[in-house]
Order: sequence, then C-alpha cells, then structure tokens
Amino acid sequence: MELPPVKNKTSITNASNMQYNIERACDILDRTPAVLQSLLSGLPNDWVLPNEGPDTFSPFDVVGHLIHGERTDWAVRARIILEYGNTKTFDRYDRFAQYQESKGKNVQQLLDEFALVRAENLQWLKAKHITEADLDRTGMHPVLGEVSLRNLLATWVVHDLTHIAQITRVMAKQYKTEMGPWPEFFRILDF
Amino acid sequence: MELPPVKNKTSITNASNMQYNIERACDILDRTPAVLQSLLSGLPNDWVLPNEGPDTFSPFDVVGHLIHGERTDWAVRARIILEYGNTKTFDRYDRFAQYQESKGKNVQQLLDEFALVRAENLQWLKAKHITEADLDRTGMHPVLGEVSLRNLLATWVVHDLTHIAQITRVMAKQYKTEMGPWPEFFRILDF
Repeated sequence: MELPPVKNKTSITNASNMQYNIERACDILDRTPAVLQSLLSGLPNDWVLPNEGPDTFSPFDVVGHLIHGERTDWAVRARIILEYGNTKTFDRYDRFAQYQESKGKNVQQLLDEFALVRAENLQWLKAKHITEADLDRTGMHPVLGEVSLRNLLATWVVHDLTHIAQITRVMAKQYKTEMGPWPEFFRILDF
Repeated sequence: MELPPVKNKTSITNASNMQYNIERACDILDRTPAVLQSLLSGLPNDWVLPNEGPDTFSPFDVVGHLIHGERTDWAVRARIILEYGNTKTFDRYDRFAQYQESKGKNVQQLLDEFALVRAENLQWLKAKHITEADLDRTGMHPVLGEVSLRNLLATWVVHDLTHIAQITRVMAKQYKTEMGPWPEFFRILDF
C-alpha cells in the first residue's frame, strides 16, 4: 500500500485523541500475531524466558497471557455486552492462568496458537457489523463498574500494544549490566 | 527452528544478567527491520504520525531516528573504537536529525531504508570477527566518558528494543480516552 509522503511535519501532537472505529482497531488487532512472530520466532530461551523480577512476565508468559485473553476476555466480554448488556457482570480475568496453560509448550507453539484464536475472534468481530449504537452499549466490569463496548474494544487494542512494549522492554533489560554507563540515557529501563 | 518445550517453569527471574555476545545480539539486530515492517507497514497516518506530546517522537520519527543511528552512531563508533581506541572522542549524536531527513518520505520508504542500512552494518559487524579482547577495548563518549565496545554494542541492541517499546506505547496512548476507566490498569500509559 503506497502512502502519501509527509510534507511539512513529521509528527502530530495530539496524543489520546484518536476516535475508536472497528477498521482502525483491526489495523492493529490483525497484525499482532505477525508482530509477535517477527519478534520472538526462533529466538533462543536466553531472550524468551527471563522476566523483570518476581511475579512479572517473561516474553514467553506474555504470549500465553494474550492467548488466555482471546479465550476468556475480549470477544467473550463483547458477546456478553451485546447479549446481556450490563445485567451480567463479566467474570474476573485471571492474569496468571498462563503459568499453568503454557507448561510443556515452546514459544513457537504459543505463537501459532495465538494466531489461530486471534483470527477466530476477528472473524467474529468483523462479521458482527458493529454499529456506533452498539459501541455505546454498556456492560458490567467486576472492578471498574460500567464500561462501554467502545471502551472494551479500544482496550483490546491497547492491551496488544502495551504487551508488545512489555516484551521488548523485558528483553532490553537483560543487557542492562552490559551497557556500562548507558542506562542513564534509557529511562524506560527503570520502569 | 524447533525449540525444546519449557518444562517446569515458564520464566526465569534474573533480569539484567545476560552476557553480551555477537550471536545473541544479532538475534535481535537482524530481526528489527522485519519487526518494524510488521508493526508499521501499511498503517494509516492516524497510527503512524501522532506522538506523545511536544518534542516526543511519533512512530514515523522513530524509524527516521533508527536510520540516523545506523548512519552516524553504532557501527561508526564501533569503527572508531577498533581504529583509534579512546584517543578519538565520538561525535555527539543528533537526536532530532530525522525531523529534517525524513521530510517528504512516507513510512514505507523509511522502513525500506532502515532495512538496507541495518543489513550493511550487520554485514560489516559479522565480517569483523570481533573477539572478547576487542569487546574490552574502550572509546571516548562525549558525555559518558570511557565506554567499552561491549557497552556500545549491547546498547545498540537495547536501543532497538526500547524504540520498539516506544512505538507501541505511543500508538497505545492514542486510544487512552476511548478506554473509559481502563487506563488505571495500564501504568505504562502514564510513562
């Protein structure tokens, strides 16, 4: 796809300002399996298994967490909103389910599994022809209270993007000692 | 490449502990062009041009910044260390050069340009057969003072990874408003 050149400026300062729509959301949701594949496929465990400290995720854990989200969170909750509105509270999300579910698998198996469950969910999402009125419908989150379908679906996208950020940050930290004095220029390594 | 399954645990808690070597570093440096391609190729400007606020980078800016780094920083400084040791201070790095250099280009042109200059630099790096003794040689950074080749080359990897983290964080922030109450679960959106 050929995009027009950027003429007079190279960035736009209006963060947090983008309006949700299914097409722009699918720009991201569609590509996340390929992004994870390009990031992690074939990497040795030296890069894939270390985390950031106790009870934090390794890149391996993150992929399992994303699979669990496809199975129990985003599309499942969207269906609840569309069928029951806010009369049926969402189940709580288990952030640590993947510690059990990923056991005995390697990262390539997880990447393939994620691609599969994501594709199924996007097939459902796109076939649903969700309207602006649908996006305003609300559901009941067990902690946050009332949330709209728009909130849920925007968060699905952000969840992908921030977990990719997490994977690369976790990997970056593995070389922190080897950087000598350089970490002072990399504020994110202290996050 | 078939990796062994992870048997008894899904992550290892020893962050910042990985030792530098050229092969593990190239695991990352080799794949960054493809990661950026999978993340950004074909994305509309709605995702590619917004930044995080004044004087911050958009995803578009980051790719230009990475190109500038290939041309003026990592491999250039490595050559200085190998040829002159710490008798020749590195030039200062211009963090904003891409504002000018990327003008009139689209993101696909930048992605292709980055892939090209990165491939050239890795061809040089791998042909150089750098030894452990070489990695201990030092150069003079204009701000940090004495740094080793090992420090420089480890930071090259971290620079890739943290800028991928930045790109995805910047994109995630575009939906912050649309997330309703959810940002409180996403600490990274306040970074």
